Amino acid sequence: MVKPSDRVRLLLRELEGRGVDLALISTPVNLRYLTGIGLKAFERFSALLLCVGTGEVTLIVPKLDEGKAIATGLPYLTYLDQEGPLGAIRRATSGCGGVRVVGFEGNAPIRNLWVLRGVLGRFRDEDIDPVLAGMRIVKDEDELGSIKAAVRAIEEGLRAAREAIKAGVTETWLARVISNAIAEAGAEPGDVLVQSGPNSAIPHWLPGNRRIQQGDVIVVDATATYNDYYGDLTRTFTLGEPTAEFNRIYGLVKEAHDEAIRAVKPGLTGAFIDSVARGVIERNGYGGYFIHRTGHGLGLEVHEEPYISGDYDKPLPRGSVFTIEPGIYLPGKFGVRLESDIAIGLNGEVIIFDSYWPYY
Amino acid sequence: MVKPSDRVRLLLRELEGRGVDLALISTPVNLRYLTGIGLKAFERFSALLLCVGTGEVTLIVPKLDEGKAIATGLPYLTYLDQEGPLGAIRRATSGCGGVRVVGFEGNAPIRNLWVLRGVLGRFRDEDIDPVLAGMRIVKDEDELGSIKAAVRAIEEGLRAAREAIKAGVTETWLARVISNAIAEAGAEPGDVLVQSGPNSAIPHWLPGNRRIQQGDVIVVDATATYNDYYGDLTRTFTLGEPTAEFNRIYGLVKEAHDEAIRAVKPGLTGAFIDSVARGVIERNGYGGYFIHRTGHGLGLEVHEEPYISGDYDKPLPRGSVFTIEPGIYLPGKFGVRLESDIAIGLNGEVIIFDSYWPYY
Repeated sequence: MVKPSDRVRLLLRELEGRGVDLALISTPVNLRYLTGIGLKAFERFSALLLCVGTGEVTLIVPKLDEGKAIATGLPYLTYLDQEGPLGAIRRATSGCGGVRVVGFEGNAPIRNLWVLRGVLGRFRDEDIDPVLAGMRIVKDEDELGSIKAAVRAIEEGLRAAREAIKAGVTETWLARVISNAIAEAGAEPGDVLVQSGPNSAIPHWLPGNRRIQQGDVIVVDATATYNDYYGDLTRTFTLGEPTAEFNRIYGLVKEAHDEAIRAVKPGLTGAFIDSVARGVIERNGYGGYFIHRTGHGLGLEVHEEPYISGDYDKPLPRGSVFTIEPGIYLPGKFGVRLESDIAIGLNGEVIIFDSYWPYY
Repeated sequence: MVKPSDRVRLLLRELEGRGVDLALISTPVNLRYLTGIGLKAFERFSALLLCVGTGEVTLIVPKLDEGKAIATGLPYLTYLDQEGPLGAIRRATSGCGGVRVVGFEGNAPIRNLWVLRGVLGRFRDEDIDPVLAGMRIVKDEDELGSIKAAVRAIEEGLRAAREAIKAGVTETWLARVISNAIAEAGAEPGDVLVQSGPNSAIPHWLPGNRRIQQGDVIVVDATATYNDYYGDLTRTFTLGEPTAEFNRIYGLVKEAHDEAIRAVKPGLTGAFIDSVARGVIERNGYGGYFIHRTGHGLGLEVHEEPYISGDYDKPLPRGSVFTIEPGIYLPGKFGVRLESDIAIGLNGEVIIFDSYWPYY
């Protein structure tokens, strides 16, 4: 297992090579990655400050979260609500020397930039996301195990959905059944999308109060976390006898899905794998109805590197985890999307995490 | 009802008075407030750009969200994943003239600052949160109605909790019972904290797998949204006969809670109301065990202005909504927190949204 402190040391080394004097890590996701602190911990200012020149690392958290800071084993400072974090930031950066370049995450709130200017005056702000993404894309055995556990729980949710689909139930009710089954299976349910009938043709429509009817196509896209790591699966169900058109479209999406997975190899790019899935659908005349990328990486975020999309021309490394989720959406009629979670193992083998394939 | 476009016009007027040339609104909460677009809509770059000089307003969303953009009635531009938002931003800002000062929300991602620099070159970034907070603190009748509906649903959740508390159930299971009851009552459940036994003495501890035991104190803090507006209530329950010490502490917290609510009047500061609640607890010797502020504002965010805390020296305006939630936490023993949701009505009257007070 990679301990948080190894990750911090690796990050310091990477930042040194990029001319960053000071880095402020403040997004819950990267704090979780680097310190092990639970994702839900943060509301007040919380940050890991890394003085690259000295290697000095300081975690700053509100006094209320001191217990979490202690658990990280990292040097830390706390502050009370009434004093605010400025004094702690000043102490954490006082030994840094002249700070000309400060590294920030792109998702960090602009407020943190303003706070740091208040302490340090002028500096150049620099994007350190590529460094963090480059570290996070390679999952270790523990991380792969967490994703596997999340996927297992989502499969329980999908089984519960298959049982619960009947005429008259609402999309929101069905989403709740799925969430509860995921929770029963020991994971934390995330977003669960249920799209029925014509809604199934609109990717990313949120579940609403539409009642499911006989003859409906139902797209269920469910996410969950285990130990803060995401799984994300989609299956397409029908209520009643599927039409010939549905059978044809489903078969085509499944073929694109399977072909893309068969093509996965370490070192191929996300763009290449996208082209495999897209090629199957285009060759059959439905290219215009596959209106999103083929997949996205999974980890502490539900969408992270690598992306299985036309513009992701980096190779997929060992340890990377991503979805393969082609879809065809026929406006006003129905949509089909099928999503699996795939890893390239540390020895280069391809791991398919999910295995539940009901016949619609 | 205040239509989103009135809000946008008011915002433009306020920004003009502050020397801002261009404002970029990109947090889901403020986009919801200004455009009416549902909060869960955003993942890719989405923003409202306001050219203050010309009054030109442009909503930029990914092509996938065009339907939502149309529903706002605002001028909009879309972009495809493969092209990215830069072209749309360029078009939206081309008529702005020389942009020297750009307004951002403090919660906006730093990435958006970088994106805008790529289009506009150098500019001064300015915090426009005070303008937005000043608008959002005053709720209209619709907003008050949404908060009331959220509170009603949370009360159903608390009733369900009272029924479900028994020896052997876990904190997470009880939290799920509460979430489901809230959903059944027609609201969207938010964070639900269940803290039992010694955990009840740790504010903001997340529900865990501890099993509730006979004699436990159980603090339940539940949030929910209706129409994206938050309610937030806390009640403290016991399983079995409460101890004399619990009865005394509970009575003291309830007295602090009631006194603070009785003191609410438009124009008094948050700090003053905080001092009323704190005074009751301090006079009785437990000041050191009331380790957080007395309350926070409610609206599209679960924590927003006004704050009922020692450092909030602004007057509470008509239309403001906030919690009153004193607590006493005896480490290693138990804690008691009681939280109500209060509004100062548009005519200056005090509205208490919640009314469910079980006898422990």
